[in-house]
This record gives sequence, C-alpha cells and structure tokens, in this order.
Amino acid sequence: MNPATKEFFRSRWVKPPDGVEELDPAQLAPGFRAAGVACGIKGGGETDVGLLVCDSEEVRSAMALTANAAAAAPVRVCREECDAGTIRVVAVNSGNANAATGEQGRQDAIAMRDAAASAVGVDPAKVAIAETGTIGVPLEIGAVTSGIEQAARDLREDGGDEFAVAIMTTDRDPKRCTVRAGGVTLSAQAKGAGMIQPGFATMLCFVQTDAAVDDPDEALRRALAGSMERITVDGQLSTNDTVVLQATGGSGKELPEGLLEAALRQLALEIVSDGEGATRVCRVQVLRARDRDEAERVARAIANSPLVKTALYGRDSNWGRIAQAAGMALAGEELEELGPDRIEAADLASDTQEAEISITLKRGDAKTVVYFSDLTPEYIRINSEYTT
Amino acid sequence: MNPATKEFFRSRWVKPPDGVEELDPAQLAPGFRAAGVACGIKGGGETDVGLLVCDSEEVRSAMALTANAAAAAPVRVCREECDAGTIRVVAVNSGNANAATGEQGRQDAIAMRDAAASAVGVDPAKVAIAETGTIGVPLEIGAVTSGIEQAARDLREDGGDEFAVAIMTTDRDPKRCTVRAGGVTLSAQAKGAGMIQPGFATMLCFVQTDAAVDDPDEALRRALAGSMERITVDGQLSTNDTVVLQATGGSGKELPEGLLEAALRQLALEIVSDGEGATRVCRVQVLRARDRDEAERVARAIANSPLVKTALYGRDSNWGRIAQAAGMALAGEELEELGPDRIEAADLASDTQEAEISITLKRGDAKTVVYFSDLTPEYIRINSEYTT
Repeated sequence: MNPATKEFFRSRWVKPPDGVEELDPAQLAPGFRAAGVACGIKGGGETDVGLLVCDSEEVRSAMALTANAAAAAPVRVCREECDAGTIRVVAVNSGNANAATGEQGRQDAIAMRDAAASAVGVDPAKVAIAETGTIGVPLEIGAVTSGIEQAARDLREDGGDEFAVAIMTTDRDPKRCTVRAGGVTLSAQAKGAGMIQPGFATMLCFVQTDAAVDDPDEALRRALAGSMERITVDGQLSTNDTVVLQATGGSGKELPEGLLEAALRQLALEIVSDGEGATRVCRVQVLRARDRDEAERVARAIANSPLVKTALYGRDSNWGRIAQAAGMALAGEELEELGPDRIEAADLASDTQEAEISITLKRGDAKTVVYFSDLTPEYIRINSEYTT
Repeated sequence: MNPATKEFFRSRWVKPPDGVEELDPAQLAPGFRAAGVACGIKGGGETDVGLLVCDSEEVRSAMALTANAAAAAPVRVCREECDAGTIRVVAVNSGNANAATGEQGRQDAIAMRDAAASAVGVDPAKVAIAETGTIGVPLEIGAVTSGIEQAARDLREDGGDEFAVAIMTTDRDPKRCTVRAGGVTLSAQAKGAGMIQPGFATMLCFVQTDAAVDDPDEALRRALAGSMERITVDGQLSTNDTVVLQATGGSGKELPEGLLEAALRQLALEIVSDGEGATRVCRVQVLRARDRDEAERVARAIANSPLVKTALYGRDSNWGRIAQAAGMALAGEELEELGPDRIEAADLASDTQEAEISITLKRGDAKTVVYFSDLTPEYIRINSEYTT
C-alpha cells in the first residue's frame, strides 16, 4: 500500500462511510486498466495522453459535461455521439483543450475517439474523450492518436497513478484514490487547478467501480451535487468539464451509501486546495436564506469575491467584505443589517489550511456550502505568464 | 490654469462636446464652495473629511445610491431622510465606510449630517452624507463632527482640489475636473479604486454646475448609464456608492448635450485606470447579442474574469479565455462556435495603456461596452495587507 493514500480522506469536511479502506491508488477497481504516455504535446516530456478501459461488456455508465455555451469539441462530440450509458473507454489529452477550434477541432476530436475505439477494439459510441489545456490552438492530432495507440499497448490494472498524472495540467499533485467498502472497490482520478467553478458538471474526473449501480445518472448527479458542484477556484466555468462514472457490477454488490460522494468531495477539495496559486481552502456556509437559489447566489458571491479571497490569503478576518459580497448578491432587496453577530469569520485570520466562515441571513430556512481557495500573487504569475 | 487639467479629456473613449474649455479643477462651478481637512481618522495625517456647499437656495439636485442590500448607514440615511431634489451640502469622510455598523452607525451618520447642517446653517434634509473606507468598524464620530466644523470655516470657491483629495482612499491620484462649455461651468470630483462595479449608482462622485437642469434625476441617470455604470475593477458592488449632482441654474443656460456624460465617463475611466494595482484599462465591446441584458452579462463575465484580467496584465492575446467567459455567461444556451474570426483580442498583447477587445455573438443586434482594469500582484498586495 502506498503510504500517501493512508490519508486520502483527510479533510474534516468529508465523512466517508464506516469501515472504508484505502488501497494503493495505482490499483484500479477490478475490471479496469489504464495507462499514461507522453505524446509530445506538452513539450517538456511530461505524460499528456491517458487511456482508461473497462474490460467488462456489462458496464453501466453516466457522464456529466460542462454547461458552458462555448463547450470544447470533445464535449460536443461526447454530447452528440456517445452512448453515455455504456462507456467502455475514456481517452484524454492534457496538452490542448481543443476548444474554440471550429470544424477542424471537431474532426480532430472524432479522430481521437476513433483511434481509441480501434486501438482497444470497441464501438466508437462507447468511447468518451476529454481534452484539457490551452484554448484556441489547433490540436496536433497525429501526436495524440500515436499516443493513444501506445497507451493501448501499455494498459495495466495498476495504471491508475500513471493515468492520474497524464491528465494533469497546472495541477501540482495528482488527485486520485482507490477505496474499498461494503465489498466493492472504487477508484477515481481527477484533475483541475484553474478555470474551476463547475456548473452542472465539473473538471475532468473519472470514476470506476465494480459495484452494481442501478441508475448511474442519478448516482452521479447526487454525488456531484455534494462535491464538484460545491467548489470554486476562480469562478470560471470551463469549456471542457467532463466526469465519467463507470460501474461493472462485477462485485455483485451495491455502492455503500455515501462512498461515491465522499470520494468525489475529497477529490473536489483537492482541486480547490491545488487551485492555481492557492495556499488555503475555506468553506463558506450560508444559513437561513430564503431558498436554495438565494443561498447559492450569496455563497458564490462570497467565494468568488477577490476581496474575500485576498483576505483569506492575508489571514485577515475582514468580515465587512463578506457583508459587502452578500449585499451585492441581494442587490435591490431588503436585508436586515449584517453585523458581526451574524458573520463568523475569525477563521480567516487563523493560519489553518482549512478555514470556515458562515453568514446568517435571517430570511428563511435554506442553506448551502461552497468551498473556495485564496487569491494569491502566484495565481497572477501563473495566469499572466501562461501563453496561449 | 493648472497645466495638469489641460488633458482632462484624455481617453480616446471620451468625446466631449465641441468648444469645451478646461479650467483649474480647484475652481468650483459658480455658487459652490468646498474644503478638505484632516480629522485624524486616517491616522497618517492625510485629509479625510470633505465638505461641499452650494450657496444658492435655488439648487436642484439628484442622487444615485448603491443597490447593495447591505448598504452603509450614510446611504440608508440619505435614502430615507434626504430631500434628494434640493441638496445644498455634501459631507464626506474617507476614513471609515460606516457600513455594517448597526444602529450605532445610523446614529453616527445622523450626527454627521446634523453637524454639517448646523455648521453651514441649512435644514438637515438638504445635507447628503457619504462615507468610504473600512467596513464594519465603529465610526469615531467626535473626530468627524469636529472635522466638519473646521471644514465649514475653511470653505473656499477654489476648494475643489482639497475636497477631491479629502475623499480619496486607496486612490493614487485625485479625480476631478472643472470644465466650461455653452456658457456653463461644471465641476466634479470622484474617488474609487477598489470594490468597483457600480450597479445602479457608483462610487463617490459629486458634480456641481451653474447650468439650469430641468430634470436632474433624468440627466444624472442618463449620464451614469454611459459612464460609471460601464466600469468594473473587481466586480464588487460597494456598500457606499453615492453620486450627487447639484445645479444652481445661476448661468441661466442649459447643460450642453453630452457634457455631463463626457465628464463622468472620463472620471469613470480614471477610476478604472487607478483601480487597485491596475496597470492597464481595457474596453470590451460585445456585438450582436440577443438583447441588451445578454450583452451586459457577457461583457461583465469577460471584464470580471480573472483569467482575462491576468491576460491583460501579462500582455497576452489569449482570446480563448474571452470565448470561455462568454460561454460561461451563456451557459446552457446554443451558441455558434466562437473562433478567432469573431473575437478581436490583439490589443491584449500590445503595450498600450488603453486596450480594446471585441466579441461578436451573432445572436441579435444588441451591444454594449464595459471598461475594466487588469489583475496584478499589486492588487493582491493591497487587499491582503489592508487591515480591517
């Protein structure tokens, strides 16, 4: 067992089911194999193509894709051409988002999908593709298809780590786990550090299990609502967000209650904590909002306020900025004045890696939480020096 | 004449009326006097109380106040107790926003207003007050009222500069002008550098004229729509935004078409260009949107995207980030793919102080523009070290 994984569920905001066991994250759930190779797009020799295959024809799956109206070519191809309920293969390149690349981008995405289908020997409709990296640059499709062919030859049951590394962009660390509970195994890999405010989907995240999942769409929807959809780094909905859940049912058992959400929430928190330039993660709780929608608007206004994010960075319990952001989200409405009795922000000034703040609106009974990272000089450096 | 004012209308995005003449900005419009004094709130000995008085009882005025639901005490007092159409006096403190300060804050705001009314000898309903600075800290009201009394003794017709300096917070430079056209004089002073995304109002801005203005509310509303409401520094609607327009009619002439808007637009651009940490200003034009509301949403999404703002800082013509932000604003809708043929972003990579970008949505005939600043390491420094 990889000692690093002993503490996968390390956030105090994640409650995994009882009896969960952490395995070496290189080891995928039974029935899955993966690989990561360097096809040369990234330039620095890092791996940039990942391939993940389910060997069972009984697989049931679900996908969630970005709601961004300028969705990238691979997202459009998945949306229009995938048989989302029976995905066998996931092919990823992490050097180029293939977004805003026009008809050529679409052709390239289809070529990538077909290369994976042919290398593995499955129907192209059962291949999901995902791409991430720079927007607006033509894809070097020859390099990607060669990479996929090589990866198909390298597929291994313990290829989870390689795959997790191959899908990284500005991530500092790979984000992955393999956990076991109730007789089933679940492995998952995610990436994401910038352009993070998943809307109806999230950044790239792939989940494999040998559990039997009756309604993968519903299971994924519920788990995402409590995990990837609760986070923001920079308030930016990506053009390429993609999540795929694949379940073989090979264990003959169902997923234990809460396991999928706990794994996805921990991965979501790792995305925030690895947010571009981030040094801290904060949970904002909005209490007693009129309805869920209002709670959400207020929480996002606080979590995405550059003034709150710099206060988090500066270890400054500047609760006035929380009141301002909440008031902005409720512009034009009547609001009982927000004083220090209704805003808990002391944690901002602490030096903990995980901080908690809360605000009580006294307008109703709805509530929500959002997790966000701080805004730092390193964020500016990364994003002002990152070339198209 | 102050040579600095020779170039007040210096932005290429401002078109002042023909024949406009620039005067020394210390010199207020006829019928007005002002002063700025140090009352001690700021600590460093800078002036922090400004007082502006109209000597004419014939004054007609209009006010615009922030829509933030957590509006500061002075805004609430102005909204509820001012006779907005006949404002004679404006009293400002720039050391403390008196926001989120509860019932005591309201009492302090009223005491501030009453001190100004009594020192100048006018009905309290004719006094507008404005405060700016830190949120959530009790006001040292004794210092402020002493400051107001001293300022009342210092009032001068050439007190415009002193007043403009006394209302500054993190501003690098005072923002003010005195201009003359069509036989009328107009002077104006503004401040603002952070928490800038005026909604239905703006940051602090005060305008005086001896023109006859029939409908000051309408004149102000129209001018703001083309000036202060077009800008953003950090996407943050303030708790304290306040604009006051005062017109004596003493010249017997009307305001020349476009003069008020040109003056306010130049001041608005100075606010953006002096945005916290800003090194550049960019105008984003959104063309062929379905309606004005959609154009506005897309323009704000681009102008407030930290990725676009860091690209502006990094001199990086990263048009893919513009496509992403637009797609985020239109999440869930159908959008013809945004390629480089529909996004003009070359200016991002230039080294000009004023950059222009545009995006053509091909969804209708509506359009808008928004002016915004870049996001820089200095912004982080200012806001992470600025203590409550």
